[in-house]
Amino acid sequence: MEPGDAARLGPGRAARTLPPRLLLLPLLPLLLGRGLRAAASASSGAAAEDSSAMEELATEKEAEESHRQDSVSLLTFILLLTLTILTIWLFKHRRVRFLHETGLAMIYGLIVGVILRYGTPATSGHDKSLSCTQEDRAFSTLLVNVSGKFFEYTLKGEISPGKINSVEQNDMLRKVTFDPEVFFNILLPPIIFHAGYSLKKRHFFRNLGSILAYAFLGTAVSCFIIGNLMYGVVKLMKLVGQLSDKFYYTDCLFFGAIISATDPVTVLAIFNELHADVDLYALLFGESVLNDAVAIVLSSSIVAYQPAGLNTHAFDAAAFFKSVGIFLGIFSGSFTMGAVTGVVTALVTKFTKLHCFPLLETALFFLMSWSTFLLAEACGFTGVVAVLFCGITQAHYTYNNLSVESRSRTKQLFEVLHFLAENFIFSYMGLALFTFQKHVFSPVFIIGAFVAIFLGRAAHIYPLSFFLNLGRRHKIGWNFQHMMMFSGLRGAMAFALAIRDTASYARQMMFTTTLLIVFFTVWVIGGGTTPMLSWLNIRVGVDPDQDPPPNNDSFQVLQGDGPDSARGNRTKQESAWLFRLWYSFDHNYLKPILTHSGPPLTTTLPAWCGLLARCLTSPQVYDNQEPLREEDSDFILTEGDLTLTYGDSTVTANGSSGSHTASTSLEGSRRTKSSSEEVLDRALGIGDQPVSSRGTRLVFPLEDNA
Amino acid sequence: MEPGDAARLGPGRAARTLPPRLLLLPLLPLLLGRGLRAAASASSGAAAEDSSAMEELATEKEAEESHRQDSVSLLTFILLLTLTILTIWLFKHRRVRFLHETGLAMIYGLIVGVILRYGTPATSGHDKSLSCTQEDRAFSTLLVNVSGKFFEYTLKGEISPGKINSVEQNDMLRKVTFDPEVFFNILLPPIIFHAGYSLKKRHFFRNLGSILAYAFLGTAVSCFIIGNLMYGVVKLMKLVGQLSDKFYYTDCLFFGAIISATDPVTVLAIFNELHADVDLYALLFGESVLNDAVAIVLSSSIVAYQPAGLNTHAFDAAAFFKSVGIFLGIFSGSFTMGAVTGVVTALVTKFTKLHCFPLLETALFFLMSWSTFLLAEACGFTGVVAVLFCGITQAHYTYNNLSVESRSRTKQLFEVLHFLAENFIFSYMGLALFTFQKHVFSPVFIIGAFVAIFLGRAAHIYPLSFFLNLGRRHKIGWNFQHMMMFSGLRGAMAFALAIRDTASYARQMMFTTTLLIVFFTVWVIGGGTTPMLSWLNIRVGVDPDQDPPPNNDSFQVLQGDGPDSARGNRTKQESAWLFRLWYSFDHNYLKPILTHSGPPLTTTLPAWCGLLARCLTSPQVYDNQEPLREEDSDFILTEGDLTLTYGDSTVTANGSSGSHTASTSLEGSRRTKSSSEEVLDRALGIGDQPVSSRGTRLVFPLEDNA
Repeated sequence: MEPGDAARLGPGRAARTLPPRLLLLPLLPLLLGRGLRAAASASSGAAAEDSSAMEELATEKEAEESHRQDSVSLLTFILLLTLTILTIWLFKHRRVRFLHETGLAMIYGLIVGVILRYGTPATSGHDKSLSCTQEDRAFSTLLVNVSGKFFEYTLKGEISPGKINSVEQNDMLRKVTFDPEVFFNILLPPIIFHAGYSLKKRHFFRNLGSILAYAFLGTAVSCFIIGNLMYGVVKLMKLVGQLSDKFYYTDCLFFGAIISATDPVTVLAIFNELHADVDLYALLFGESVLNDAVAIVLSSSIVAYQPAGLNTHAFDAAAFFKSVGIFLGIFSGSFTMGAVTGVVTALVTKFTKLHCFPLLETALFFLMSWSTFLLAEACGFTGVVAVLFCGITQAHYTYNNLSVESRSRTKQLFEVLHFLAENFIFSYMGLALFTFQKHVFSPVFIIGAFVAIFLGRAAHIYPLSFFLNLGRRHKIGWNFQHMMMFSGLRGAMAFALAIRDTASYARQMMFTTTLLIVFFTVWVIGGGTTPMLSWLNIRVGVDPDQDPPPNNDSFQVLQGDGPDSARGNRTKQESAWLFRLWYSFDHNYLKPILTHSGPPLTTTLPAWCGLLARCLTSPQVYDNQEPLREEDSDFILTEGDLTLTYGDSTVTANGSSGSHTASTSLEGSRRTKSSSEEVLDRALGIGDQPVSSRGTRLVFPLEDNA
Repeated sequence: MEPGDAARLGPGRAARTLPPRLLLLPLLPLLLGRGLRAAASASSGAAAEDSSAMEELATEKEAEESHRQDSVSLLTFILLLTLTILTIWLFKHRRVRFLHETGLAMIYGLIVGVILRYGTPATSGHDKSLSCTQEDRAFSTLLVNVSGKFFEYTLKGEISPGKINSVEQNDMLRKVTFDPEVFFNILLPPIIFHAGYSLKKRHFFRNLGSILAYAFLGTAVSCFIIGNLMYGVVKLMKLVGQLSDKFYYTDCLFFGAIISATDPVTVLAIFNELHADVDLYALLFGESVLNDAVAIVLSSSIVAYQPAGLNTHAFDAAAFFKSVGIFLGIFSGSFTMGAVTGVVTALVTKFTKLHCFPLLETALFFLMSWSTFLLAEACGFTGVVAVLFCGITQAHYTYNNLSVESRSRTKQLFEVLHFLAENFIFSYMGLALFTFQKHVFSPVFIIGAFVAIFLGRAAHIYPLSFFLNLGRRHKIGWNFQHMMMFSGLRGAMAFALAIRDTASYARQMMFTTTLLIVFFTVWVIGGGTTPMLSWLNIRVGVDPDQDPPPNNDSFQVLQGDGPDSARGNRTKQESAWLFRLWYSFDHNYLKPILTHSGPPLTTTLPAWCGLLARCLTSPQVYDNQEPLREEDSDFILTEGDLTLTYGDSTVTANGSSGSHTASTSLEGSRRTKSSSEEVLDRALGIGDQPVSSRGTRLVFPLEDNA
């Protein structure tokens, strides 16, 4: 077994006793009544006439009934979502901000869950079961000979002996319970892709170093701390006698991994609405997007941790390093998959004139993005992670090649998919609290978990911010740190990871706890965001497209080895160097190859590549008839800042006075700046042509200086 | 059993021996490896440690392998679609019109089918089977006891004894074979909804009478004629000894029903591209959209035809009338469902200010449209038919209430879904020719079917056109009739109906024949459309939004009992009366209630409804600040024509000289008209305000005359 396989398979090894019959697609009229309908059909085919008509009719009635129940249960969800949408509208209309749509979806889900749980009769259902003894092992397909006719059965999953009766329990409850893989393979991908695709690139790349640190180091720290704290809690529970079943250290770490996936959807929505600080937004959004990916791969690696020998839960250095290897392998593999499909799409859209036919273009875009998921899954990597990086690549390159219509179309398409999938997951969460039949409520564990995630978040944000601030020009102020600490909501990803495997007692306890954590964080933190923002003095009403003050990371990066860069902060130096390298490579080679923008390759590539360069450079770059598209000017604008920094004394002064330590004074000084920046922005926005020519010049700011 | 139930269940009673494991969603990252993956998970859950690790590993490997194969087979389809898209682009780019995208998709499908069939090794697969004897009847769920552990199995379908080995045949072939219900429940709804939603209302309603006649009478005639001819062919085959299995008269009628669903997608695409005559377009498009619905319900009714007694395939008057009742019941039920959801959506979008939040609006629109499908299925009607009428209602009412952004968003969303679903079906058809494992090629039957559909189409178009021409002012010329005769392509609907049930020998023969008919018509007729258009002298390059000449149906309708309306053509009189009634009801009551347009209800409703009228009328109508939206002016423009007819002698002259019999001269006279019409159009288009006031006045043209 290759390392990648083991890890990917890992979280999939759930005893899926949940009925996977109903496959929900919140986005498409769906396949209804596949299971039982087939049963009816089977007996009414060719052999219809010579079998007893009565029996056949009974089976048909059963199939009919099951098909109806399927439809009704889906209608329930649609009704839920419709209600949510209408209430959200009312809330938005009245500018109510204490409850986000996802929180609302959960409340409606809860209500429907209560009704389904206590309101519907516990019919033992039409599913007749038969015990049939078989030796040795379970096969995936069974052929059953029923008085001469053969029927084919497919394996659905193992049922623990105690649960046999519940299989026949409440039909309606079963109907509204989905195969957990639905979340992973249908609902998460559009959410994650949208996150990548809608990334505000400029602000994201400006803060890339900090975001990566929060996402990778932070998640690992948080996972480890939560895992260890929970192990203490588990030990305590065993001491007190509250825990009878097995609960290993790896289980605790697994819980740490799944619960480390933050999802500040509520906070970000309010940030968006109030136009709160863009850098804080970028930090929070970037962290949450990337740490989802990290959490998935981390949890896979933890599951893959299988030391040799009998005591399978002791520490084993070899197994540990194998897990680390798996983590790196899956992550880089998925990253590569996503990036490669994105690049291929960019090339295809660049070198064909597909943009004359926006429908074809959109369809191609959609198919290519979807194929990333499948490709990664087929190669043993993680589709969801691949989709994220595909989304980022598509936004960075392909988006520039698309026609205006396709740009809005793809954005809108994924926005709708994202909206529906997200609200569906949250309303399902509400529902699951009552309809999920294997809850394990353990007060000690739950309280422990709440304390652990609080401490884990604190141990992740504050120390990391301290170290990052050593290297950052534009410090992450205390108010930002508190806000990040506060925004540690858990959402769809934690839920999807937790529900994926609910086979063992430990996993069921984790699932219940995760659900409660999601409820609490979404409701309480979601409601407290607006007060918290004003309490922490975080500026709102910022134009999101406005340039942040020039004394920020990327400014620093582009300034490179300026006089200010002291010997001490090596970290900053390296990241700046790395980033500059990447940036100039991207701007000089990747963008011109993959899009219609950037300097012509004939000028950036060495002379002996002349022919190749001419082939790859699109004519638009040469004749300069087509001005640089606005979306391309993300970096160009940054460069624009630079240029203006040279000329404009006010901004330069601000740029060099970058050692703000008092976070409260930061806001005031920023406000004064914003007006002058706006002027600059406007100047840059209007003069598109000069920007494009400046772009080439400004790629090497140091050379320009020299 | 209620009538509706029986009929809806009818076509679903296929012995689905095709593996339904792989559920394809061309539009969403999908649920992968549900079947076998669960098998692996089952054995690796709570009981993992105490079972032998070797066996577990083997099962996991199997699951892994199966999951990969699922991904690979889906990737195959995505690759197919991507290739198709790129080739279509090339074709469109070079203005190649002899091959439509659907034809292309089929060719690529064929190629991949050949590769899969002959290129992949016929591995007997990892699916192990076990025969287990059971008494009495097949249950939908099996619980199997494997050395102490319980596994749950679901019934997949019956397998005819001869096919048992093929179940274990080629894994890859199985993977690319989908549950037939996927087509019905996932792929058709977006296609059909889009057809309804993108209906060009004006031209559709102008020709409503003829379209309804073609769709209902025509399809019934065609079904009956094809059924009878095929019965002759079957008799002949039995005589010659070519047919050994059963093939009843109802089977022949069923074939007639499924093959009567025309799908001139290729022709319409070319019409669209060349801007061919709008009335012909409306006739063809309207007929094909509605006859899909008719064919579905017709085939259900034929399957539901079950005479009492032993000889279940003889004629029985009671059963026949029951079938007719079922037809009417399902059709009107589905129609009502669709219309009601559309109306509810219109009301919701009108009375909330949801249009301030386009994302919410789009999501609501999508959910409501989807719920139509589920609602209809839950009530025992046909979801696909309901979705069609929902689409028409949404386009007619809801569309007017949507924000500008939502309008384009919904249009584009469904356009993309439609495009992907359609091309997927066609490429699947190509694939199915080689990968479907139960083909029955019967040359006699196939040749007979080709002759029958030709005769059936002829017997449907020419006589009906003759009768319609008796009542129509604006005759359907011979060239139009020939073009309609020629455009009798078969496509996605015929395929989906045919693949739904491939249990018996007769049905398999029908499926193979349908597939070949689709191939032939799409390739040959698709390729011959452009030459045919010029050969038949059908005018092209018409502005689709241009008004047709005023001597058409609706003009006649609004003129009502003018001096020209002779005693003889009662049909026309009645339809005109009906249409006028509907139209004035729609304009005076429905549009004002459901949308922001039309005359205020306070003026159209009786005085005692004053309060209600005030509540229902939106303020926009009163203060007239918001001019009538363009989309609303469909009928208003028609009235505009009328007004101008009173004043403009040229047009009136044309209007009264409406007895063109020579179809060739029609075109010339039209061309001369178009310039003056364009002027009128422009005049109407600019003066939005006067149109809205004229709208009210012109609802009763007769009163105006008096």
